[in-house]
Amino acid sequence: MDLTFLGTGSAYPSPNRGASALVFRTEGESWLFDCGEGTQTQLMRSQLRAGRITKVFISHLHGDHLFGLPGLLCTLSLNTNPSPTHTPPCVEIYGPRGLRHFLRVTLGLTGSQLLFPYAVHELEPTADQSPLEGQLTPEMTAGSGPLHPQEQPGRTISLDVINDCYYLLEDKKFVVKAFRLYHRVPSFGFSIQEHDRPGRLKTELLKELGLTPGPLYGRLKAGESVTLASGRVISSSEVLEEVIPGRKICILGDCSSLMGEGPLRACSQADILVHEATLGDEHHEKALEHGHSTPKVAAAVARACCARRLVLHHFSQRYKPCALQKEGDEDDITQLGRQAEEALQGSGIEVTLAEDFLTLPIPLKRLQ
Amino acid sequence: MDLTFLGTGSAYPSPNRGASALVFRTEGESWLFDCGEGTQTQLMRSQLRAGRITKVFISHLHGDHLFGLPGLLCTLSLNTNPSPTHTPPCVEIYGPRGLRHFLRVTLGLTGSQLLFPYAVHELEPTADQSPLEGQLTPEMTAGSGPLHPQEQPGRTISLDVINDCYYLLEDKKFVVKAFRLYHRVPSFGFSIQEHDRPGRLKTELLKELGLTPGPLYGRLKAGESVTLASGRVISSSEVLEEVIPGRKICILGDCSSLMGEGPLRACSQADILVHEATLGDEHHEKALEHGHSTPKVAAAVARACCARRLVLHHFSQRYKPCALQKEGDEDDITQLGRQAEEALQGSGIEVTLAEDFLTLPIPLKRLQ
Repeated sequence: MDLTFLGTGSAYPSPNRGASALVFRTEGESWLFDCGEGTQTQLMRSQLRAGRITKVFISHLHGDHLFGLPGLLCTLSLNTNPSPTHTPPCVEIYGPRGLRHFLRVTLGLTGSQLLFPYAVHELEPTADQSPLEGQLTPEMTAGSGPLHPQEQPGRTISLDVINDCYYLLEDKKFVVKAFRLYHRVPSFGFSIQEHDRPGRLKTELLKELGLTPGPLYGRLKAGESVTLASGRVISSSEVLEEVIPGRKICILGDCSSLMGEGPLRACSQADILVHEATLGDEHHEKALEHGHSTPKVAAAVARACCARRLVLHHFSQRYKPCALQKEGDEDDITQLGRQAEEALQGSGIEVTLAEDFLTLPIPLKRLQ
Repeated sequence: MDLTFLGTGSAYPSPNRGASALVFRTEGESWLFDCGEGTQTQLMRSQLRAGRITKVFISHLHGDHLFGLPGLLCTLSLNTNPSPTHTPPCVEIYGPRGLRHFLRVTLGLTGSQLLFPYAVHELEPTADQSPLEGQLTPEMTAGSGPLHPQEQPGRTISLDVINDCYYLLEDKKFVVKAFRLYHRVPSFGFSIQEHDRPGRLKTELLKELGLTPGPLYGRLKAGESVTLASGRVISSSEVLEEVIPGRKICILGDCSSLMGEGPLRACSQADILVHEATLGDEHHEKALEHGHSTPKVAAAVARACCARRLVLHHFSQRYKPCALQKEGDEDDITQLGRQAEEALQGSGIEVTLAEDFLTLPIPLKRLQ
């Protein structure tokens, strides 16, 4: 399980920093978070396989997070080998209201015939998530004609008011939720919560009890109790190590602040919290004016969530990557890391500055 | 006056070849032809200034020629310094019907507030320019709601049936026309015809006649006759060198063939003819099936137009740039150049293989 940053720049893609995109990878599947212009080229430059992308999450509809999506879908399609016996799986796309219309129009007008189905599941923002001018009118998102030939109907997901979050999906391995952020246009964050795994079987103990590997092992591992020939009942908990807690990865879209209780609940105890830091603390007012955060703001969120690691990204293009920085450069990217570290002093929360093509492993949690 | 190729690859942008885009530059102004995904980043990598772009021409609505346009406009806007005393000039955009809707939706849904006005002038394709499935229905291009706040009404330009072309613009320096091509979706080519320039004044002769530099020189240069104090009438033609013929640059969109007489008329005697050659001659059938050309097809067009130079571009991504080609590589880009040269043997037409960032000077024509 790991995270790879494909673009860590804000506003536009530059030769130094790609526009926003990062990939969460787990056992053969890749989930893409945001897809700025040039993401497909960054994917080609990385060690990732574009064809593994099964889900896409768009945090908000600004172009530097979205303009790469139609082209990426077209290129994924070029790499698809259609066969009469195998229907390629549906690419599931999650994002704010308006995304469905965006894809329908961009793919439709360009005559882009995809060789796989896709579905867009839209999150309904609340009216307080952005200033009024950042909200889309119903006319802008409504009448977009018939579905794209490869489009499958997507869900429209509203805020669960009680839990202050959006339930996106749950499968054997993960529960994924979205939560609200405040930005110039409605923006969302996503939390990926891995399910806990049962602990390992204490095989030495089982042998002592006279059990040999077989179906009984499976039942014990699955949490059942079993009765031995001797009549002795062995409970699962006796022979299992402690549960391995699931990992939690939280990826926030652009924001100047959180909305409600949802973000803190969804990101509580996150193993990795990815937060934007567009500008340094000394530009706090400018950042705020544009709906963005500084390292100090991101650090406060990490602290409030009791995250283990804060990863900063979405840097203004004024900050060159470390490797290209020259002595005397006014804008120093490492300064942003120091600002976050300072704000997190004593918390035990580690800080990472993301760079294009950084891959961050997310190891299994140690037993506590 | 020159042409710079920003992307010479087909289908999608790769780290080896950008998606389609080229810039025609003349005295401080730049015109962009096609704008595939990543064009803005290629511009940053080049020696060109994005801020000089005043006109954009889109040959057809396939994504690899278009997906970079919304992002480019946004980035141009970020580089605009608005001032109460200076309204930035309107960016004029020309392309097939559907382009207006594409920009209105992509810019609108992403909340992209441009700091300069733009206008989209749409070319009406004819029904025979593409197979039926490549044609946009009126529903796909019609109801797109109100104009973008920075959008100025554009013209809808129909085919001039008599001359088989579209008149796009005429200014002090150029006449620009479009013409029809056959492709999977309606595609157009563009011809830029520079006006002829009057020849230079024969200053030695003028001195002999007793004229000194001053207003009379200007009148003669402008084509007038002047009467000397002696009563002698000097006609403009006596004292002017031969007219310097205007240059003609023709840039064709993707095509497998030309439509009607328009393209040959518009490209007749072109100094530079830019034509696609997606695949080598040995893949002729596959090229045709996808609406594309091979070097031989491009050469035949150049020959029919009596062009001076044929420039090939829009190569399948299977062809690596010369610099990256390795011994034994199956697909050899130089082979495409040889195929065109072979087809043009004896014609005197020169062949150039475009590469990303190639700049081709277009010198003033020699006096004939």
